Amino acid sequence: MRIEFIAVGSELLNGDLVDTHTARLGRMLRSLGLGLNQGQTVADEHDDLVAALRAATQRADLVLVSGGLGTTVDDLTMEAASAMTGQELVEDRPTLARIQARYAALGRPLSDAIARQALVPSGAAALNNPVGSAPAVRLRHEGTTLFFFPGVPREFEALVEDHLRPWLDANAPVRPRRSHTFKTYGKTESGAAALLEGMDADPRLKIAYRAHFPSIQVTLHVEDDDLEAGDRLLTEAAHQARQLLGPLVHSEDPQVGFREAVAAAVAAHPASPTVAVAESCTGGLIGKMITDVPGASRWFLEAAVTYSNSAKIRLLSVAPDTLERHGAVSEEVARSMAEGVRLCAGADVGLATTGIAGPGGGSADKPVGTVHIAMATADQTTHRLLHLPFDRERNRTVSAWAALELLRRWALRPVSPS
Amino acid sequence: MRIEFIAVGSELLNGDLVDTHTARLGRMLRSLGLGLNQGQTVADEHDDLVAALRAATQRADLVLVSGGLGTTVDDLTMEAASAMTGQELVEDRPTLARIQARYAALGRPLSDAIARQALVPSGAAALNNPVGSAPAVRLRHEGTTLFFFPGVPREFEALVEDHLRPWLDANAPVRPRRSHTFKTYGKTESGAAALLEGMDADPRLKIAYRAHFPSIQVTLHVEDDDLEAGDRLLTEAAHQARQLLGPLVHSEDPQVGFREAVAAAVAAHPASPTVAVAESCTGGLIGKMITDVPGASRWFLEAAVTYSNSAKIRLLSVAPDTLERHGAVSEEVARSMAEGVRLCAGADVGLATTGIAGPGGGSADKPVGTVHIAMATADQTTHRLLHLPFDRERNRTVSAWAALELLRRWALRPVSPS
Repeated sequence: MRIEFIAVGSELLNGDLVDTHTARLGRMLRSLGLGLNQGQTVADEHDDLVAALRAATQRADLVLVSGGLGTTVDDLTMEAASAMTGQELVEDRPTLARIQARYAALGRPLSDAIARQALVPSGAAALNNPVGSAPAVRLRHEGTTLFFFPGVPREFEALVEDHLRPWLDANAPVRPRRSHTFKTYGKTESGAAALLEGMDADPRLKIAYRAHFPSIQVTLHVEDDDLEAGDRLLTEAAHQARQLLGPLVHSEDPQVGFREAVAAAVAAHPASPTVAVAESCTGGLIGKMITDVPGASRWFLEAAVTYSNSAKIRLLSVAPDTLERHGAVSEEVARSMAEGVRLCAGADVGLATTGIAGPGGGSADKPVGTVHIAMATADQTTHRLLHLPFDRERNRTVSAWAALELLRRWALRPVSPS
Repeated sequence: MRIEFIAVGSELLNGDLVDTHTARLGRMLRSLGLGLNQGQTVADEHDDLVAALRAATQRADLVLVSGGLGTTVDDLTMEAASAMTGQELVEDRPTLARIQARYAALGRPLSDAIARQALVPSGAAALNNPVGSAPAVRLRHEGTTLFFFPGVPREFEALVEDHLRPWLDANAPVRPRRSHTFKTYGKTESGAAALLEGMDADPRLKIAYRAHFPSIQVTLHVEDDDLEAGDRLLTEAAHQARQLLGPLVHSEDPQVGFREAVAAAVAAHPASPTVAVAESCTGGLIGKMITDVPGASRWFLEAAVTYSNSAKIRLLSVAPDTLERHGAVSEEVARSMAEGVRLCAGADVGLATTGIAGPGGGSADKPVGTVHIAMATADQTTHRLLHLPFDRERNRTVSAWAALELLRRWALRPVSPS
């Protein structure tokens, strides 16, 4: 089944808006074992629109269109569909009644421009829009099915789910495809690939790597017409990948990101540990990441963002002598910050960062990207030295991830080796 | 001049990647008084690619293509260009030499697949790529000029600047268009539009509003074939808009965002004030935003992320009685936090937030979205109560912006009215 997509709107071509519908449809179709074969982006110009609809209809079995269904003179998609099919625009009574009821409920007057949204090519199906005025529209022309959706993301997404997905379930030949994703941190794309080398010898199994800085997502895709054999292969391959990736994996759940994984690890620790953070180069980012997840107040006590030396001394009890002898960016100060914030806050775990995020502040023996992180518990203080090659923002991001990863791994192994 | 763009790559159609090149080219062309007329997204399939190139070449004067110039068997763009033009692929000697030198410098072996990137259709110009291997390619076919660029964003952007922009400067008919952008905070899109109502009576002047949550960008566009008259109109309109928008504007410079504007305002204050922050619901976000800007250490002393009551008492000297009587989310606690962090840190300004970001934690008299912010100086303590309707992330973002906006406006008016 050849499927094409047309995104309508001059705002997509003049740079005011980035088209995300293509990627969304692509992912949805892929999850059903289908695929998007081609896309077009067309301005709000009648002739361009008719030509694009005609070209896609000639090539494809299914044409999906978004945009140009609104109330302004720029909205020409239905006129273009009428011109291509030769079917005149007629008022769809149920749609008009729905729009009237919607405006009455909102207490707003119904203008001619709004009522115009009930016009669809004769013979087309006007489909219910629960979140807006313009209907989705489905029609057949020369053996091809066309779906039209409003371009507003909220409406587009709702109507694709309400009308396109059930239609595909009923009409599209299914090619069973299953996948399993591991979210990892700690290796580059090629580093992760090296760990899984040779795993994709079976031609039914494909491994895809996708970078979401600083995380790498590893996805196993299995295609097998035999449903059960495919499921078995995916289960086995996932088991093998889990062993090979080991502690690099923080999540196998699309809904769970790194922050949620850190929170879950701490929450799952039998001793219900509390955590306090001392941040220098990360400047509040660790606190922000921890508190991005609702419920952090159950285990997160406080963060001290100590940019100045005097704050490190006063809030974290770092010895002035340590700062003077080793400098603020040093293993000694990182350890002292982690231990200090742990004791001052009365927390079970203290986490600390100190480093040079750039672009300025580097020197010959402490270049930009030098970052010390430390984690203090009752038993011991752990330290890591990072040499980061990125820009300020990415250096800070990796520093925060590295510190939180220390915490996550500690929380998952409550009995620490000493 | 009709201009079309073709983005090549199956990853754009299966949802692994969102195409941002279309929007980038659209903005660039608009800034030159030109425009992108149509776009296509094509899979790594030879026949689809040839057909897309042919269709665009027939319609347009200039066709821009990205992607499919790499080293893998999926990279078919040059083969497709060869098939469309009927010009066989030939090795471009200078390009091969450049790639060889590049790999020698990197100390990596040069494979056949990499050397293949020096093949271009006979008669085409292979253009230098300073940041990668594949050259950009320019060719003429049936009166149309085609440019081919690598799809990797860093290379695409560099080569568009190096090769397309100079070509357009030399070959494209210029339609003078000027614009001026105000970055604002504090009103919705329609609120900002209401302030400027009636300003666009002159048909040469258009006002565009674009939301970058929580900021609204207001751009004045002027089109006038008379260059001087256009400049004059834009200057006058910008002056008028500046008056009407007043303190809502934090930047008129594309390079300066809100964070930089806050830092610049504090740095410009004659007394070189220092700042300390006490964060509850923002959880470190204010510290992060301040330290996103290099050089913050000159005025930013520290942030205390005090999620727990005990941290508010110990680090900010909030009285336990105040917490008990009014609750942590209250005007009294916000004021006490701002005053406390100011005194404890020895700063000139103390900034504080306390609130309920959601999704949980709300109650009948303190619903989700209730946020108190406060700013303490030597003279006085200012307080604002926000009722925010967004999700957790956006509620936290607005809380941080509102606090930093208090600081920015104070810094710009050093003599505070009392």
